Amino acid sequence: MIDLEVFKTSSSMFFLIWGGVLVFSMHAGFAFLEAGMVRRKSVVNAFNKILTEWLLAAVGYFVLGYGIAHGIFFALMSVGAIEKANLQYNLAHYFFMLTFATASIAIISGGVAERIKFKAHALAAVFVTSLIYPFFEGLVWDSNAIFGNPLGSESGFLARVFGSPFHDFAGSVVVHAIGGWLALPAIYILGPRLGRFVDGKVVEFPIHSVPYVALGSWFLAIGWYGFNVASAGSLDTLSLGLVAANTTLAMAGGGLAASILSRNDPGFLHNGVLAGLVAVCAGSDLYHPLGAFVVGAVAGALFVWGFKFEIDTLKIDDVLGVWPLHGLCGAWGGIAVGIFGSSALGGAGGVSFLSQFLGTLIAVIYAVIASTLLYLAIDKTVGLRASREEELRGLDLSYHRTDAYPEEAMMR
Amino acid sequence: MIDLEVFKTSSSMFFLIWGGVLVFSMHAGFAFLEAGMVRRKSVVNAFNKILTEWLLAAVGYFVLGYGIAHGIFFALMSVGAIEKANLQYNLAHYFFMLTFATASIAIISGGVAERIKFKAHALAAVFVTSLIYPFFEGLVWDSNAIFGNPLGSESGFLARVFGSPFHDFAGSVVVHAIGGWLALPAIYILGPRLGRFVDGKVVEFPIHSVPYVALGSWFLAIGWYGFNVASAGSLDTLSLGLVAANTTLAMAGGGLAASILSRNDPGFLHNGVLAGLVAVCAGSDLYHPLGAFVVGAVAGALFVWGFKFEIDTLKIDDVLGVWPLHGLCGAWGGIAVGIFGSSALGGAGGVSFLSQFLGTLIAVIYAVIASTLLYLAIDKTVGLRASREEELRGLDLSYHRTDAYPEEAMMR
Amino acid sequence: MIDLEVFKTSSSMFFLIWGGVLVFSMHAGFAFLEAGMVRRKSVVNAFNKILTEWLLAAVGYFVLGYGIAHGIFFALMSVGAIEKANLQYNLAHYFFMLTFATASIAIISGGVAERIKFKAHALAAVFVTSLIYPFFEGLVWDSNAIFGNPLGSESGFLARVFGSPFHDFAGSVVVHAIGGWLALPAIYILGPRLGRFVDGKVVEFPIHSVPYVALGSWFLAIGWYGFNVASAGSLDTLSLGLVAANTTLAMAGGGLAASILSRNDPGFLHNGVLAGLVAVCAGSDLYHPLGAFVVGAVAGALFVWGFKFEIDTLKIDDVLGVWPLHGLCGAWGGIAVGIFGSSALGGAGGVSFLSQFLGTLIAVIYAVIASTLLYLAIDKTVGLRASREEELRGLDLSYHRTDAYPEEAMMR
Repeated sequence: MIDLEVFKTSSSMFFLIWGGVLVFSMHAGFAFLEAGMVRRKSVVNAFNKILTEWLLAAVGYFVLGYGIAHGIFFALMSVGAIEKANLQYNLAHYFFMLTFATASIAIISGGVAERIKFKAHALAAVFVTSLIYPFFEGLVWDSNAIFGNPLGSESGFLARVFGSPFHDFAGSVVVHAIGGWLALPAIYILGPRLGRFVDGKVVEFPIHSVPYVALGSWFLAIGWYGFNVASAGSLDTLSLGLVAANTTLAMAGGGLAASILSRNDPGFLHNGVLAGLVAVCAGSDLYHPLGAFVVGAVAGALFVWGFKFEIDTLKIDDVLGVWPLHGLCGAWGGIAVGIFGSSALGGAGGVSFLSQFLGTLIAVIYAVIASTLLYLAIDKTVGLRASREEELRGLDLSYHRTDAYPEEAMMR
Repeated sequence: MIDLEVFKTSSSMFFLIWGGVLVFSMHAGFAFLEAGMVRRKSVVNAFNKILTEWLLAAVGYFVLGYGIAHGIFFALMSVGAIEKANLQYNLAHYFFMLTFATASIAIISGGVAERIKFKAHALAAVFVTSLIYPFFEGLVWDSNAIFGNPLGSESGFLARVFGSPFHDFAGSVVVHAIGGWLALPAIYILGPRLGRFVDGKVVEFPIHSVPYVALGSWFLAIGWYGFNVASAGSLDTLSLGLVAANTTLAMAGGGLAASILSRNDPGFLHNGVLAGLVAVCAGSDLYHPLGAFVVGAVAGALFVWGFKFEIDTLKIDDVLGVWPLHGLCGAWGGIAVGIFGSSALGGAGGVSFLSQFLGTLIAVIYAVIASTLLYLAIDKTVGLRASREEELRGLDLSYHRTDAYPEEAMMR
Repeated sequence: MIDLEVFKTSSSMFFLIWGGVLVFSMHAGFAFLEAGMVRRKSVVNAFNKILTEWLLAAVGYFVLGYGIAHGIFFALMSVGAIEKANLQYNLAHYFFMLTFATASIAIISGGVAERIKFKAHALAAVFVTSLIYPFFEGLVWDSNAIFGNPLGSESGFLARVFGSPFHDFAGSVVVHAIGGWLALPAIYILGPRLGRFVDGKVVEFPIHSVPYVALGSWFLAIGWYGFNVASAGSLDTLSLGLVAANTTLAMAGGGLAASILSRNDPGFLHNGVLAGLVAVCAGSDLYHPLGAFVVGAVAGALFVWGFKFEIDTLKIDDVLGVWPLHGLCGAWGGIAVGIFGSSALGGAGGVSFLSQFLGTLIAVIYAVIASTLLYLAIDKTVGLRASREEELRGLDLSYHRTDAYPEEAMMR
């Protein structure tokens, strides 16, 4: 005798955990992307930062973050309560949403690489994943959030004013724009790597390894299907196919646009793929696949332009280009829902350009303010930046007492 | 109240997407396998080729290829139509089949490495994944294909003549033999790498990295479970267990045979695993697992012999050995169904040796002709081969303006 | 018309295969972890050992091992029998359990690296995965095992004496403690690498690559969710969410403890994560997540202490520290169920400290005796240790006739 209710719930948990494992594997992607883009002397630091973030977030989001965003504080419950069926689902959901929450600090990590104090970054990881990210997550994604969800619910602020809630299916704004715009003030306050600008000119810092960049990008692109598809949350929807197709087409748009504009540069190609993926999350359940392609292509172009604008004009040393990638393309993704989500352009409709614009704008403002306060506070207390000696020697030796390739280093 | 129909369809889409993500990750495997087997000066080119192929195929297969093979042209539909339940399933199916279609050009990529023009390869990718591959895919796998499916349907040509349709469960022939036999004329027309043969003798070209070869092979072997198991298409079959077991035993046969014959050579071991996997696809739903082991072992031996025969006797510079691996072992896989699929040898029966032989033969002939025409046409128009200077300098610097390890390159 | 029975069985097979693919990918993790921790001259050997083990185990566990542990000898059946629905499930189960069985020899591989004869290790792989591991697996996990399951069944020996069977949900003891305690005598009998101890002092052997260690650790941590979650076996349980959460929190505990104690050492951080994961398997379906965190944290500390104790005090050259990682932390995981599984500490209860302690002790004793006999027998017959010349030259050149980076090696 089959208990259909149990079978269905168990299957939906399996679905969520499948997605969570893929998004967890994206963190391996963040690690290798960073390890490839920095200089050799910061490779170990990249790996340690990304993994340590995850570990800290796992605890902080369990104890505090998930509760802020979804109104359930697991840490206060005995296991007797936790074992109940509905909470079982919430535990799977905790795991899934944790993999999203941690992305916000992993994004920042790529921007502040090679010169941030290890302890400062760890402290930021706790605050971002336990408080700053979950607060906004709840505003958009859960009406059980302890601060309500005025932006996302059917009856919230944006829906009442503009007739439609802020739609962000898989987090172009909640995860990527928040992460990218949290990173910008952090990078600015931290300042550029020593020697990056000389007499107002950019000094080229050749990267460590294209294969690591490619590996990181592949891990991210593969895991992104979990990010988007499993955002459906359970197996009572038929949208999974559309989400998978839109994810694919947006990736194509982003990668091809960035590749053409950069004349087949490997860094822009592999990051262009990610730009398209960042932008499509929000409306991947609404777009026509050709609309998704355009959304991705615009993101790919935006990334190439933004990357150059940031370093050449703004003179901001964002090592992996996380602000153009996640900040700009994430914001574009939020706004794009109001354009390509409309039925006039082949989308499923039911979206409002103004709701999308305003929701995205609120996210950007929130992230910039929260980050400025957080990183100034860290700077004034434990200190934000590695010492000149630590940075010159490299964070690997300074903080982790090892080269990335110890045997080879010894033989030199 | 649970809608069982929706739950079942949603679950089957999840199943297909799970498989598709695994096969997508195989493309990371193709990339690292190629990056490991070439020389350092072509590593970036390997990554850019494999990723760019995927992006182009995503568009071409959406607009044209899927329609040719399965009779549904998504690009002509508005999203209103696309959102219908049955088309949702087709969109998941598009994603899954795209990951197969792209394998055909990824196979070719490994053969033509280090000296093909980037634009020529990109152009070939579009034609192969939008037209050449989908045409044959439809002949075998879908009676809704716009050209019908005389080889594979229960009432098609082979079934009427030999009493049994051409059986290719997961693509030993449709994907691998087609890919491998498309590659052979391309490699021949392109010619060997400069300096590969001197006075009729083979010059050893030492490969870049065994760890990358291993990583590529692992990605491929892991993803292969999605390739084979999810070929069942939906969750109303009990064959999944048999397919998983057969995949495993054939991998064992291929790897062990190649390893023994090559006295534990890492290249033959890791590629031997793939040889067994290539061969088992077609009958993985029919074989007794010990039959699958033998099918795989024969493939492993065939690969070792074919690899040496190709370079030493035929003097063809197939960088990754894609013709023996996918062409020979894929064809063997198609024919093996007619032997080990029979109930006399423990298989599930219902197969015909002649149908298998003829279907495979048609595939080989089709691929050789299509490839010859395509690559000659490319050669006469945009040109096929990189210039002597581009090749000597290396495609990384010539086409992508960077070394694979820029920091280290600068320090030399 | 939907056949619910078939849908449910098909879905559960999919679930098992999903888990099996993840655990299979952990073997890529074992390979990279070992490749990163050895010296360059043993990198190829690491890849060949880990992959060859898998291939041998696939055959041996199919022919013999699965039958010993679960009472079904597939190799004796014709495919007609194998195709039956219940055996289909068993074939999926074979694949899943094979990925566990092979872990036992993959664990040993990391301890005996850089100086074991290739053939000796291959022989050990066959005996361990076909006989030694399956015997104990059946004692705990299946009452259809041909030797019964006195430790694990509700009516077995431990249950009758202490009121509760030995509980090992996902194999802290069955897989990890067995693997780690099998490794210890093997490493001892084999002796340390040449030059590892000079005048009773440890000589530092710098490792090959931190990025490979990180990659291996990521593959393992990602795959671990399949290891633990899919141990539920089918989709008629609601425990999946709790298992996922506990896996996450224990990983956090292990990684953070090891990182703090080692002052952000990358090796201890990445292995500390694994220590927490090893320890949590047994009770991941029972603990309160904060209990899982503590279980993991204790394991992380135990690993750091055990690693140093083994090399500095015991003077045992366990290259990857597999005895502290899998042996000590696995045993701790078995015992921890008797503590943190109790309802007094927030667990689900129904466990007995004495059952857990005794079951774990039996595992340790069994593994030490079996390994001693096996490795002494191998030593007396085919020989265990590579010759002095082979070891000094490096196993890559001695057994596989290639450097890990042939192109670069040729240019030196």
